[in-house]
Amino acid sequence: MFSGGLDKVRDGGWKMKEEIWKTSITKVEPNKLLLRGYRLDELMGAITFAQAVFLTLKGELPTEKEARMIDAMLVSSIDHGVTPPSCLSARTIASTGASLNAAVAGGILAISRHHGGAIEDSMKVFQEAVRRKREMSKTAEETAAILIKEYKEKGKRLPGFGHRIHTMDPRTIKLFRIASDLGIAGEYVGMAKAMEEEIERSGGKRLPVNVDGAIAALLCEMHFPSELANAFFILARIPGLVAHVYEEQTKMKPMRQINAKDHEYDGLPERRL
Amino acid sequence: MFSGGLDKVRDGGWKMKEEIWKTSITKVEPNKLLLRGYRLDELMGAITFAQAVFLTLKGELPTEKEARMIDAMLVSSIDHGVTPPSCLSARTIASTGASLNAAVAGGILAISRHHGGAIEDSMKVFQEAVRRKREMSKTAEETAAILIKEYKEKGKRLPGFGHRIHTMDPRTIKLFRIASDLGIAGEYVGMAKAMEEEIERSGGKRLPVNVDGAIAALLCEMHFPSELANAFFILARIPGLVAHVYEEQTKMKPMRQINAKDHEYDGLPERRL
Amino acid sequence: MFSGGLDKVRDGGWKMKEEIWKTSITKVEPNKLLLRGYRLDELMGAITFAQAVFLTLKGELPTEKEARMIDAMLVSSIDHGVTPPSCLSARTIASTGASLNAAVAGGILAISRHHGGAIEDSMKVFQEAVRRKREMSKTAEETAAILIKEYKEKGKRLPGFGHRIHTMDPRTIKLFRIASDLGIAGEYVGMAKAMEEEIERSGGKRLPVNVDGAIAALLCEMHFPSELANAFFILARIPGLVAHVYEEQTKMKPMRQINAKDHEYDGLPERRL
Amino acid sequence: MFSGGLDKVRDGGWKMKEEIWKTSITKVEPNKLLLRGYRLDELMGAITFAQAVFLTLKGELPTEKEARMIDAMLVSSIDHGVTPPSCLSARTIASTGASLNAAVAGGILAISRHHGGAIEDSMKVFQEAVRRKREMSKTAEETAAILIKEYKEKGKRLPGFGHRIHTMDPRTIKLFRIASDLGIAGEYVGMAKAMEEEIERSGGKRLPVNVDGAIAALLCEMHFPSELANAFFILARIPGLVAHVYEEQTKMKPMRQINAKDHEYDGLPERRL
Repeated sequence: MFSGGLDKVRDGGWKMKEEIWKTSITKVEPNKLLLRGYRLDELMGAITFAQAVFLTLKGELPTEKEARMIDAMLVSSIDHGVTPPSCLSARTIASTGASLNAAVAGGILAISRHHGGAIEDSMKVFQEAVRRKREMSKTAEETAAILIKEYKEKGKRLPGFGHRIHTMDPRTIKLFRIASDLGIAGEYVGMAKAMEEEIERSGGKRLPVNVDGAIAALLCEMHFPSELANAFFILARIPGLVAHVYEEQTKMKPMRQINAKDHEYDGLPERRL
Repeated sequence: MFSGGLDKVRDGGWKMKEEIWKTSITKVEPNKLLLRGYRLDELMGAITFAQAVFLTLKGELPTEKEARMIDAMLVSSIDHGVTPPSCLSARTIASTGASLNAAVAGGILAISRHHGGAIEDSMKVFQEAVRRKREMSKTAEETAAILIKEYKEKGKRLPGFGHRIHTMDPRTIKLFRIASDLGIAGEYVGMAKAMEEEIERSGGKRLPVNVDGAIAALLCEMHFPSELANAFFILARIPGLVAHVYEEQTKMKPMRQINAKDHEYDGLPERRL
Repeated sequence: MFSGGLDKVRDGGWKMKEEIWKTSITKVEPNKLLLRGYRLDELMGAITFAQAVFLTLKGELPTEKEARMIDAMLVSSIDHGVTPPSCLSARTIASTGASLNAAVAGGILAISRHHGGAIEDSMKVFQEAVRRKREMSKTAEETAAILIKEYKEKGKRLPGFGHRIHTMDPRTIKLFRIASDLGIAGEYVGMAKAMEEEIERSGGKRLPVNVDGAIAALLCEMHFPSELANAFFILARIPGLVAHVYEEQTKMKPMRQINAKDHEYDGLPERRL
Repeated sequence: MFSGGLDKVRDGGWKMKEEIWKTSITKVEPNKLLLRGYRLDELMGAITFAQAVFLTLKGELPTEKEARMIDAMLVSSIDHGVTPPSCLSARTIASTGASLNAAVAGGILAISRHHGGAIEDSMKVFQEAVRRKREMSKTAEETAAILIKEYKEKGKRLPGFGHRIHTMDPRTIKLFRIASDLGIAGEYVGMAKAMEEEIERSGGKRLPVNVDGAIAALLCEMHFPSELANAFFILARIPGLVAHVYEEQTKMKPMRQINAKDHEYDGLPERRL
């Protein structure tokens, strides 16, 4: 037997070594649960899921404005039809008769570097850009000009700009408008916009901030670590993945070959709230 | 080449067979996204994530009361400390240096029959119970007595009752109180309570409705199909899994052996909202 | 802290409850590893991987003939091009920049009920068929006639027969020939063939034993439990999945849309051993 | 509809753009399968699974000696008891009633940077070391001295050396002996040994080549790209993971808390081939 944290002692009993590890997220006692110090049953009914998400990840409750920002961010990424790789892998797995959780897990495995991962990369770009702007005591525009030039010289791709389908992503426009209304848009959103303008000014080509870049700037404004960026996209996309898995398993023939380009929308026509 | 939906025609071109498949969740056009018919950018800022979850899964917006019920359900299941298998598998995978999405996917793989899956099984039990109650024109108590007797005779375990730690699950109590305040508690919640009482009356042992059973009854009240039951648990638990993966990767040594029973809570002491 | 298998005792130490759990696969000691009782370093160089697979799963070494059968089974399922769902999900995940293990895991998630799972279902059919043949003291042909009639009356689909591409699966033909040469083909292979003939005789349609059915019959002959059936397919397909993930990540553009029907083989032309 | 590679043409038909993608692994035709150019049914019975693995990954059949080396490598890593994270995550997922493929996928997700990943890192170290040895026209010993000094100065950890349990890993010893007997051990194995000696000579501490380092050196000798290193470990460990999942699901209570350190081996006592 591996004794791990236990040492056999002379009398045949066991003694515990100091190998107790620590966790600070949830305290579990019989009939009592504390999430980041708050009683879970007190939180229920008092705060929204978006507020609880913020509390769970950051350890503190969001302000009312941050909560509304998080809600808008999560709504923005809830689904994007059948062509994203996360949807295709989830539906492909679902078509083999897999369980819902296995198909969703397979979808999440596709939310990596090139799909969703741009949020994390974008955050690092904006964080570095704002740091250098402060160090150099320059404007956002001047800093953007320096950075875009560096990127071009190194031949590096700038994450968070441009989209294979949308030339004016309606999600970015709305996220930035909400952030502005709530007073959340600050230096990072300013930097994102300055970089968008500099890309066009210096290269003659419009590559607007995409939804990944917009979320990245907003997560920077709310002081999330970039390592958690992907978490928001994963969380936001779960309902979409579930809806696709359910549609696949209730409406489609098992083991059909799923070719994304052969699909057609047959849902409700446009309607207003 | 596999021609799939394409047939080579005489002139060397390709003709498409009628193999266009349909999806009704999201319509994607350049610069325009419709989720269940609504413009995604119109939904952003106007509805909460919980409302968008309901819309994505059911195709229609929830009432204000349903939205509050969904929020409370999702908050109730956001985390339960380090001992659930989903947390242990996510942290174990995280400890090997895996990426966030891979560790979360591994956690979701553990949300299956015996962990989370009880919600789906419970829904089937309550749906059948209410169906038989109506057919037999009996009260909830009479129906519960008949069903519990059948379960005992068949030696079958009743999902949704009893918990390995909680004897009076605070989450159940609060969920049922909110459901009652919102007017959502109806025949299914009534049946759950009748069964809880009948279990005690007939067997002398208290096995109260657990959080899985409570969520199951509420999903029945809101007419969700039981196939989607697990989706709510998966979605609700993502923030918890993310927080554990982040804690593991930022505070713990890689490749440590994670023994759940050797942990200790070192988070904030109890505080009030 | 959860004390699990430990009880605090009066003197402030801990006492272990009898909660030591058992495993019989591998004994690990410093500088010594026993696999099913054999020293791992003694097995290395002395037996093939296929023999070690048999030993690990069954607890005993295979005969020379069983080893050759396992090798042929594993080789038969090593790859089937890009169209199987396991390959599509692995490549889709790989195209997002995921790590090799995540992409392979995503492929394995697609090896479920309708893809690979037929081996397990087939084993159960053959096991029941042979059991009833023995009980009824009938020939394979008579038993097959009774069973096929029952399946038809119940409108149930018979797993292990027919293929979407192959009308005479070369893998089945070769597996049965090898099994016959090695003296492994017995009652179960006989039953599979009798059922194939009865399907054609009674329905006028040829639905030959497919590779899943053939492997199922052979696993029955070697007395594997049906719960392990899928393991052989998963194991056999790993090299194929790895080759596809590597091809995707070294030759293709990230985030391309993978439509299976638009592919073409550009590998080596046919050659002989 | 996304038209992808199809353009609507005037007559209402569709025309395919040149978007046919290529794959060179397997050619699938009705009743005929070519793996890397060889008929799959010709390979069955003629080559072992290990040979087929080599063929699938490298595109060419191994020599007889390489095939024996691959077999020994795969056997060496087939299982290492219950404590590795891949086993713990697979068993944890299995304990929730998940399917075999989901539990195995969860195990594979744990085969990442710190568990299995050392093979890839080690290969890069040995490849760079041999490259520099050639460039500098020095001996392995001289090169090792330079490299180890650099690693120490940078405070970097050297992958492939040392083991948390084994001080003289019997698998390394046997792999190197077999490699030597087969004439496969060359510059890379020599470099691994020179580095092991230099670590001890310069630091006074023995950190022998571990099984990851040994496999890394051998994969270098057989000219595999380092990106495929993890594939061998994943493939080799599948039978072990399957055996653990099966043991968990057939012998243990569902939802038990799996604490690795509380286990005990109750398998067969040591026996000889």
